[in-house]
Amino acid sequence: MTGGSRRTARLLIACPDARGIVAAVAGFVAEHGGNLLESDQHTDPEHDEFFMRLEFELEGCDLDRGNFAGAWSPLADRFGMSWQVRWSEDVKRMAILVGKQAHCLQDLLWRWEAGELRAQIPAIISNHATLQPVAEAAGVPFHTCPLEPQREVAQEEQVRSILEQADVDFIVLARYMQILGPTLLDGYENRIINIHHSFLPAFSGGEPYRRAYDRGVKIIGATSHYVTADLDAGPIIAQSVVAVSHRDAVDDLRRKGRDLERIVLARAVRAHLEDKILVSQNKTVMFD
Amino acid sequence: MTGGSRRTARLLIACPDARGIVAAVAGFVAEHGGNLLESDQHTDPEHDEFFMRLEFELEGCDLDRGNFAGAWSPLADRFGMSWQVRWSEDVKRMAILVGKQAHCLQDLLWRWEAGELRAQIPAIISNHATLQPVAEAAGVPFHTCPLEPQREVAQEEQVRSILEQADVDFIVLARYMQILGPTLLDGYENRIINIHHSFLPAFSGGEPYRRAYDRGVKIIGATSHYVTADLDAGPIIAQSVVAVSHRDAVDDLRRKGRDLERIVLARAVRAHLEDKILVSQNKTVMFD
Amino acid sequence: MTGGSRRTARLLIACPDARGIVAAVAGFVAEHGGNLLESDQHTDPEHDEFFMRLEFELEGCDLDRGNFAGAWSPLADRFGMSWQVRWSEDVKRMAILVGKQAHCLQDLLWRWEAGELRAQIPAIISNHATLQPVAEAAGVPFHTCPLEPQREVAQEEQVRSILEQADVDFIVLARYMQILGPTLLDGYENRIINIHHSFLPAFSGGEPYRRAYDRGVKIIGATSHYVTADLDAGPIIAQSVVAVSHRDAVDDLRRKGRDLERIVLARAVRAHLEDKILVSQNKTVMFD
Amino acid sequence: MTGGSRRTARLLIACPDARGIVAAVAGFVAEHGGNLLESDQHTDPEHDEFFMRLEFELEGCDLDRGNFAGAWSPLADRFGMSWQVRWSEDVKRMAILVGKQAHCLQDLLWRWEAGELRAQIPAIISNHATLQPVAEAAGVPFHTCPLEPQREVAQEEQVRSILEQADVDFIVLARYMQILGPTLLDGYENRIINIHHSFLPAFSGGEPYRRAYDRGVKIIGATSHYVTADLDAGPIIAQSVVAVSHRDAVDDLRRKGRDLERIVLARAVRAHLEDKILVSQNKTVMFD
Repeated sequence: MTGGSRRTARLLIACPDARGIVAAVAGFVAEHGGNLLESDQHTDPEHDEFFMRLEFELEGCDLDRGNFAGAWSPLADRFGMSWQVRWSEDVKRMAILVGKQAHCLQDLLWRWEAGELRAQIPAIISNHATLQPVAEAAGVPFHTCPLEPQREVAQEEQVRSILEQADVDFIVLARYMQILGPTLLDGYENRIINIHHSFLPAFSGGEPYRRAYDRGVKIIGATSHYVTADLDAGPIIAQSVVAVSHRDAVDDLRRKGRDLERIVLARAVRAHLEDKILVSQNKTVMFD
Repeated sequence: MTGGSRRTARLLIACPDARGIVAAVAGFVAEHGGNLLESDQHTDPEHDEFFMRLEFELEGCDLDRGNFAGAWSPLADRFGMSWQVRWSEDVKRMAILVGKQAHCLQDLLWRWEAGELRAQIPAIISNHATLQPVAEAAGVPFHTCPLEPQREVAQEEQVRSILEQADVDFIVLARYMQILGPTLLDGYENRIINIHHSFLPAFSGGEPYRRAYDRGVKIIGATSHYVTADLDAGPIIAQSVVAVSHRDAVDDLRRKGRDLERIVLARAVRAHLEDKILVSQNKTVMFD
Repeated sequence: MTGGSRRTARLLIACPDARGIVAAVAGFVAEHGGNLLESDQHTDPEHDEFFMRLEFELEGCDLDRGNFAGAWSPLADRFGMSWQVRWSEDVKRMAILVGKQAHCLQDLLWRWEAGELRAQIPAIISNHATLQPVAEAAGVPFHTCPLEPQREVAQEEQVRSILEQADVDFIVLARYMQILGPTLLDGYENRIINIHHSFLPAFSGGEPYRRAYDRGVKIIGATSHYVTADLDAGPIIAQSVVAVSHRDAVDDLRRKGRDLERIVLARAVRAHLEDKILVSQNKTVMFD
Repeated sequence: MTGGSRRTARLLIACPDARGIVAAVAGFVAEHGGNLLESDQHTDPEHDEFFMRLEFELEGCDLDRGNFAGAWSPLADRFGMSWQVRWSEDVKRMAILVGKQAHCLQDLLWRWEAGELRAQIPAIISNHATLQPVAEAAGVPFHTCPLEPQREVAQEEQVRSILEQADVDFIVLARYMQILGPTLLDGYENRIINIHHSFLPAFSGGEPYRRAYDRGVKIIGATSHYVTADLDAGPIIAQSVVAVSHRDAVDDLRRKGRDLERIVLARAVRAHLEDKILVSQNKTVMFD
């Protein structure tokens, strides 16, 4: 349950743990006439780090995009906070990068059309033309950036240029099947969401279903995570699993896994859109 | 993660939703020198009801058992709060009522001995002598209160008398298999936890595994709930399920169900011991 | 794992339990040169009923559509079997009935296009025109049969006529939201698959998510079952569940439930297409 | 559902895939008057290997311990089978090796006393005296074999000698926390069951809960497997998982994990006792 159609602001905070933070933050919102809709906090006892997410109604509140930083900074400075504020009228702009497999893209588009994902989708980008009809059926511009041998950097520059022209806030790799290099990663920290088709950290890298089959596991999984320079090692956002048995061939794992991938990726994208994820120590705090 | 070995107080609040509650409550704790360890809140949008649970450290705090109500009441009155405070040094006194089946009792006692359940257990009561050795092995006084036809009220009075002499805070029905009458229920509202061996509201009443088998369900469940005068209809605390198939006979359902019952009951007892449950509208708010 | 691209026959058997059935049946297949690919059996010990499903390769086998019944009948008669044989070259014809909600229909069509469901879909029928574009995008004929007050039988006759003209083998109610009367049920025993948006037998009938919310359950479910004259009481084919909490409003239950409904309905349709379901005593034997 | 109190034989078969195996095997049982209670088969399409498990009633059957091999060998030779037969009157002898943690041992003993595990337990062995009272309460001989630096082989010889004197059929490592060397492994292939407290292959080796916490996974697991010379890399028998969040400290993972460990280990032991596991290619075929 989030703010729905009400105008709200979301405030995300991370700082060293200290006494009185909640009182100070909630007091700040109350003094400015904000009605607190949600408030979650977490303290990481190992690193003495404090995390907080608030959502408050703007109706009757004297804070706005123009004056927020000025009003808030003294308090933020006192506690040494790193923070972000998001205004509900700013609908995030999401790019989707895909390969040849349709299921994750189709699923995201369905949910988007059904109103589950409050986002703008200015661009779908692929190294293949395969999914162009899917993008077009949803009315989303589709860009093909073919990958040629020894031309990886040039291709990433082409993708990057499209992302920048489309002014995207974050990127979803919906089975993109390419390892991103610094050309794409740079500046998008904690803003690129990948779906990996295994229960990480098991079977990171290529062919996870084949390797799960060969290892004889009794459960397979899927993992959504923020992308970092370390392959499949970024902060985990969501995971889910399904039972398998000796009767399942590799293709059965792939089929069962597709359902996992769709659900786990959608859960991560939705949490990101609702500003429910904080990252620290290569881990996520997920305020569900 | 709870207060651990630190001295803490837990404050549970329910009141009509209003602006500024979190700021006022967190401010109160901060003013009195309490260090907030956990804070959870929830607003029921259908009934405009606000719920909050706080845990704060007492080290350096000027609040104690003697002065808390006086200090807190003005704020509580202002928001029309119903509230409870619990001091971590008060270890709850839990009675366990059982029938002939050992698994839930044994499981609770294991967890208690392993330190998972921070409680005192002054009495185990049964209508049969079967489980006396289990109680004695754990060093807990065992009382047999046999149930004879037409003597239900007298038996409940006997049980009640033991409960009162043992000064128990709450009661766990660990497969007690008797419907409680007003003699036992009266005064223990939201303080009697039952484990029902089905996925409520399906198969409330007797023989749920047999009826689940006859209905041909593909999943069975267990439900822990607070006991009310309506059979199996009290506020649900926790539920869990397990897959079954046509190959499972009724006895297989019973066997698989025992594992569910143990885990679901333990989860409810632990949440109750940690004051993580608020009840409203015959439903629970569970601050995990 | 099923026969894949190989030409196979599937034999489904139910009969009173007796000695030597497996030997006789497997021997029959072997004598006629059939290569057994799969063989599952189950004995219901309460009703002494025996169930078996075989799939055998037709390459090198002297059995075919023309001579099977003659060759097989003596053995079937000896054990008092009821039986069915299905030839892999016969692709089942499936009609889909829908209301206004798209998710189950879209999911079935996507799986169908992706090759997960080996079926023909000659007709999609609805009492509303809402989903016509979805059907047309998939190239499937769409029929609107509006439901007017006091005209239920006439509408069912119209639907029935379309089903018969389309020569369908079975019907999928993909959130059709109408109770079927005898005009539609008659003759389609164990050939109409419904998805009910609750964990049956809990919350049969209308508004299950609202009622689950009001009851305060901690887990919600979805159930696919064959339709009988008793509302939501037919043989259960598949069920699945997902955890919910006090934070989930009714609309959150609906959103989470949609994912369950899609997966559970697809699992049932797939099992039906692969002839993996036997029905007895209002229950299913599911040979996964 | 297994043979229950009836006298039965169980036959486990592995051989190259071929036509007519089921017919031949079921025919053999029928010819000798055996009533087939269960029959499962599986073909590994990648390795063209066939697996079968049968259980048949001995009442009215002319096969027994004395004449079985002679009667069966011609058929077994024809198909190149490796096979084993088990007689239900032979109750398996199980040794349990433990460290200091009680939960898995207690759980196995409780299930054993409750009749869930049909076994004899002639010995519980530990490198510590901690759990001696638990063993004694169950009436099982307890042996302490302390592990001293540089004395690993001597300790394993001591353990081995106890196992041989106790004439055990298989060994359960119920959180034994020592890596077994060849002195113990030799001759016990597929007869030593371990419980590893992670979702293998993730977090094999030491401190899996700590490492799962550090990696920030959203689901933890437990895995039972047969022990081989490769650490945590033997054939997987059963796995289960539970959701965790950023709120769970390492000790919460340990607590939640204990429930998984108990259930997953018990499931593996039960399957082994019922001869439901076949091993091939370092994987298990589990005939549930």
